Amino acid sequence: MAADKKVEQITDMEVDFAQWFTDVCTKAELVDYSGVKGLYILRPYGYAIWENIMGILDAKFKATGHENVSMPMLIPESLLQKEKDHVEGFAPECAWVTLGGSEELPEKLCIRPTSETLFCDHWSHIVHSWRDLPLLYNQWCSVLRWEKTTRPFLRGREFLWQEGHTLHATPEEAIKETEQQLETYADLCENYLAMPVVRGCKTDKEKFAGAERTYTIECMMHDHKALQSGTSHYFGDGFARAFGITFSDKENKPAIPHQTSWGLSTRIIGGIIMTHGDNNGLVLPPQVAPIQVIVIPVASHKPGVTEKADELIARLKAAGLRVRGDFSDNSPGWKFAQYEMKGVPLRVEIGPKDIEAGHCVAVRRDNGEKIVVPLEELEARIPELLGDVQKGMYEKARKNLDEHTYTATTLDEVKAIAEKENGGFIKTMWCGDLACEMAMKEKAGVSSRCIPFEQEHVGDVCPVCGKPATKMVVWGVAY
Amino acid sequence: MAADKKVEQITDMEVDFAQWFTDVCTKAELVDYSGVKGLYILRPYGYAIWENIMGILDAKFKATGHENVSMPMLIPESLLQKEKDHVEGFAPECAWVTLGGSEELPEKLCIRPTSETLFCDHWSHIVHSWRDLPLLYNQWCSVLRWEKTTRPFLRGREFLWQEGHTLHATPEEAIKETEQQLETYADLCENYLAMPVVRGCKTDKEKFAGAERTYTIECMMHDHKALQSGTSHYFGDGFARAFGITFSDKENKPAIPHQTSWGLSTRIIGGIIMTHGDNNGLVLPPQVAPIQVIVIPVASHKPGVTEKADELIARLKAAGLRVRGDFSDNSPGWKFAQYEMKGVPLRVEIGPKDIEAGHCVAVRRDNGEKIVVPLEELEARIPELLGDVQKGMYEKARKNLDEHTYTATTLDEVKAIAEKENGGFIKTMWCGDLACEMAMKEKAGVSSRCIPFEQEHVGDVCPVCGKPATKMVVWGVAY
Repeated sequence: MAADKKVEQITDMEVDFAQWFTDVCTKAELVDYSGVKGLYILRPYGYAIWENIMGILDAKFKATGHENVSMPMLIPESLLQKEKDHVEGFAPECAWVTLGGSEELPEKLCIRPTSETLFCDHWSHIVHSWRDLPLLYNQWCSVLRWEKTTRPFLRGREFLWQEGHTLHATPEEAIKETEQQLETYADLCENYLAMPVVRGCKTDKEKFAGAERTYTIECMMHDHKALQSGTSHYFGDGFARAFGITFSDKENKPAIPHQTSWGLSTRIIGGIIMTHGDNNGLVLPPQVAPIQVIVIPVASHKPGVTEKADELIARLKAAGLRVRGDFSDNSPGWKFAQYEMKGVPLRVEIGPKDIEAGHCVAVRRDNGEKIVVPLEELEARIPELLGDVQKGMYEKARKNLDEHTYTATTLDEVKAIAEKENGGFIKTMWCGDLACEMAMKEKAGVSSRCIPFEQEHVGDVCPVCGKPATKMVVWGVAY
Repeated sequence: MAADKKVEQITDMEVDFAQWFTDVCTKAELVDYSGVKGLYILRPYGYAIWENIMGILDAKFKATGHENVSMPMLIPESLLQKEKDHVEGFAPECAWVTLGGSEELPEKLCIRPTSETLFCDHWSHIVHSWRDLPLLYNQWCSVLRWEKTTRPFLRGREFLWQEGHTLHATPEEAIKETEQQLETYADLCENYLAMPVVRGCKTDKEKFAGAERTYTIECMMHDHKALQSGTSHYFGDGFARAFGITFSDKENKPAIPHQTSWGLSTRIIGGIIMTHGDNNGLVLPPQVAPIQVIVIPVASHKPGVTEKADELIARLKAAGLRVRGDFSDNSPGWKFAQYEMKGVPLRVEIGPKDIEAGHCVAVRRDNGEKIVVPLEELEARIPELLGDVQKGMYEKARKNLDEHTYTATTLDEVKAIAEKENGGFIKTMWCGDLACEMAMKEKAGVSSRCIPFEQEHVGDVCPVCGKPATKMVVWGVAY
């Protein structure tokens, strides 16, 4: 007898996008809430997506010469305070340890919100000569930022991420590293997560606390809002000076090194959900899906069906795919809905009639298309179909981005587009003044997402002050 | 011109074993000290050893059906207090967060010393039916225990580990899991880390806070002291009752599940150092060595030497080995000492005379043996030699364990052996009384390491009280 499990219902995204998002996070079993606000549990299915992302990035980092390290999770207050801009940016949202066992600590310790200060302190011990450079470090860890409003993946008080920290003999080398790592993130998004990105520079207002320059990739979500998806910072020698890091150059003269950092977090999983999801739940890009193919036997009590399903699973596993079968006593209808909720890219159905006809039926999660696959072509066709899903998902997201990217020349235009489109990406020229950037926020409700690397001439003057402007900025409503 | 780098000196292990250990940790570039006592920086070379251990264990965990998750790092005080024995064991060494941003928290939050309470709280939300069991979870993270005395790897206030947590319908299944995971740790130690282990049960005094039963593997270090290297706990249904975890069994009756946890930490790297190291530094088992083979060109200014070294590296890489070359301008002598310090299992020297003779010279780190390897046999011989090193290291450690394992029948005998041997593993019978266990500690300076699975009859009575005794215990001086 089939178990009487009900298919979980989620809110329609058109009705309430925020509630839809939360529903997907819980019903697809990605997260659970813990007893502390803003601290989430990543359940096996959610964590497996992160593991796949880690695997991809870690291999790329190592291929470009980076090494992993582990820094402490606690930062003494005095260390955090060494770089002025940095402490101003982070101190207000630090969680502080004040008791060790039953004793009050002589100095309070902050749980790392980011680890620049720890890396700098360490480097001040170990860097002596140009021979010690560059240092290309990365760490996988979690950090804490005591945010007021929180949401799974998008804004947690604790989140998982990687933070890269590098030290170089010259500014040119450090800037090259900053750009290279941004491109690594762009590559991850576009070629693995099926998320097109806009690459650019942050304005001074939006850059990282302590950075000279912050690069960013910005993605458009299904609701036309923007998600900052990865950032890469060039620090110049500011931190090195603050922490007294020096080295003897090739001429044996004292010199100050230049520094970068770059990070990508589990926030990107929020981006995957909001880029690709639909009213049936999650839609996962095959490249990072924990289960790429779910095999579902139909009428499995009939002779030979379970055996044939087992055979297909074994063959697909041998072909290097992440495949699973569901042989539970739940109904096929429940199973179909369940794996749609979980965003499995391909469902393979196999029943008595299919066996007789020598084929199985593959169903694409991204567009619902059913494809009859002759069993002898299984190992060739299924990976090909996964490739089609990956490509289809990218193209759909690209279409969303293109169709909701606008240009504007006046503040009223920006405001009208942002209101009508719930954000969108709006390109305008900008004079470079902070006051005009603030006015955009106050009057049109948009923030600067970036100054894109690919500049266009969309006007001659700043839409706010009317002064000559040569930089193009992309504006939007950010998560 | 060769750089005038000096070979780093370390303290002889016979002179001061503790100082030798610290010297190896820093000179082999495994760790650096941070600004907070007991919080260590794992440098790239140290962390790479941990990455290799993680890779081995993670694959084994997954092969036996375990899934990774990520739990929050903070535990509300009220949650920690739910299981009485557990909170008594851990509360005295918790680090507490009392401030979030600038505001005092309504309830103080402990940085996880271990995560049983978090897993239980989560499971109380998601477990309903027998269909939901078993849950086989693991997480890779760091934990904090506010220890008074600290040492790199061996006792940190923060350390990296994995903690597995599983929930089962029956005690039998949970006990089987506990035993299986202990065996996974034993397999890691014996077959990858070249560390022989003694498997057994902890006495009640030594078991984990809240556990019904704690299994352990105990390793003997070079100085004859014991290192508890991995533990696996059976909790019965104690935690489940405290946290209200129930499920409907197959007969639809309410039932209480049974639970396990098991953990292995970066402490094991301390174990590797103290089992295999010598007065030239670290000696790493090939299975987890970040660099398995270091290729050093000799007289590299002579034509063809650098090219030939490059060729050897490429061939060994293609054969699947972790190999590196050192083409720096440091002298060969400095390089030899440096990679000995770092414990690289095999050094391959190649110079003009070697090239002429069509061979290279391989030098084993574990015993200094030099082996001439014809170049055409490189891909066959080098992996074979690495296998020999791995085997040789295990046998040497096994010999140390065997030669310093004793039996005793009186307290005086135990005391005399422990004093003479700086510990050793001493087998005696034990009546099972806590008072006698305490007397062993007070009068002979040894603690019970475990009640080995492989029992022997080494007497008829307890050496302390003289009462009949049927259990054999292994005693030692523990790190």
